[in-house]
Amino acid sequence: MHIACLDLEGVLVPEIWISVAERTGIEELRLTTRDISDYDELMNHRLKIMREHGLTLSAIQSVIAQLHPLPGAADFLHWLRERWQVVILSDTFYDFAGPLMAQLNRPTIFCHNLVVEDDTVVGYKLRQPDAKRAVVRALEELNFTTMATGDSYNDTHMLQAADFGAFFCPPENVIAEFPDIPVASDYAQLQELFSKAAEDLDAAVQG
Amino acid sequence: MHIACLDLEGVLVPEIWISVAERTGIEELRLTTRDISDYDELMNHRLKIMREHGLTLSAIQSVIAQLHPLPGAADFLHWLRERWQVVILSDTFYDFAGPLMAQLNRPTIFCHNLVVEDDTVVGYKLRQPDAKRAVVRALEELNFTTMATGDSYNDTHMLQAADFGAFFCPPENVIAEFPDIPVASDYAQLQELFSKAAEDLDAAVQG
Repeated sequence: MHIACLDLEGVLVPEIWISVAERTGIEELRLTTRDISDYDELMNHRLKIMREHGLTLSAIQSVIAQLHPLPGAADFLHWLRERWQVVILSDTFYDFAGPLMAQLNRPTIFCHNLVVEDDTVVGYKLRQPDAKRAVVRALEELNFTTMATGDSYNDTHMLQAADFGAFFCPPENVIAEFPDIPVASDYAQLQELFSKAAEDLDAAVQG
Repeated sequence: MHIACLDLEGVLVPEIWISVAERTGIEELRLTTRDISDYDELMNHRLKIMREHGLTLSAIQSVIAQLHPLPGAADFLHWLRERWQVVILSDTFYDFAGPLMAQLNRPTIFCHNLVVEDDTVVGYKLRQPDAKRAVVRALEELNFTTMATGDSYNDTHMLQAADFGAFFCPPENVIAEFPDIPVASDYAQLQELFSKAAEDLDAAVQG
């Protein structure tokens, strides 16, 4: 049996921090791992900015509640769930993902947790290091075959660990750096790649 | 983060083989592990009966398509998915579960596969031995806390491996044999048990 492992931001929904930056007008929340490569440093910077602007968790959640899945994402996800199992593997936080998951019919999502005190985000807790790859490996130990997609650096370990991995609309520099990973530029292409991969995996099992 | 691991038949939907027996009038398909304790012997018996009656996979699937989740199951599942992640751990087959999963908004389900040739069920393939317990252990390796429920013998390893496990409407003999496992007799009781367990697990993490 196949399980599709999907990154969330950039694949099914917009980048959450960038959307929050746009809607709150706090430009410094736009920074991503492309600007500050160390994740812990980046998150501590975000926490500091939120504190300085008195941006509470519930304020961020109201912004996120106004976001919508990317055009076509809900149909793509429905198509996947009719065929195979699906688990979303994301480096976002449960505290953020809820309103978006509700709009996608609540698929299973494995991500991380914020540390919140009196509606103030005071820290964060990664569930485990290299969490996406760890889930793919665990699923393979459970005798599932895995097909994965994501759009960026933090997905490459997952894409390489999976039985089949493809980028979805990645930036040019990521494509250049990982020339062996196939690329889909829209949901139709991703459906085609996954369908072909599933056929190949089925044939390998029977062969 | 907590994941609820739910048995399917007897917890969210009726017993599938019994429903098929009732709707096809083939009484011998009613037999369960209570009648033939060896699972492989039971499944081979079922395959033989299906062959003798010319019962195809698509015929069974049309019967299953007429079944419905247990009263209250969809609401209970929705309540769970709003709070925590949910994975259904079942010893049924993907070939059977589909129409019922569609009625439950397609939660993630880990189960087994039938081997089918020309619409005839010729065999079955368990994904792995003691599959429910294996998933609970894998989830705990991924740093999730687990809350589980099921109604029968094939759930006891999962219930004992989980951080919290409770029976849902089990038969009297199962209750008697596992007096240490708490029992819920309806969804409201199960919600209460899971809510309390989640609080206790949260307190343990913070303490």
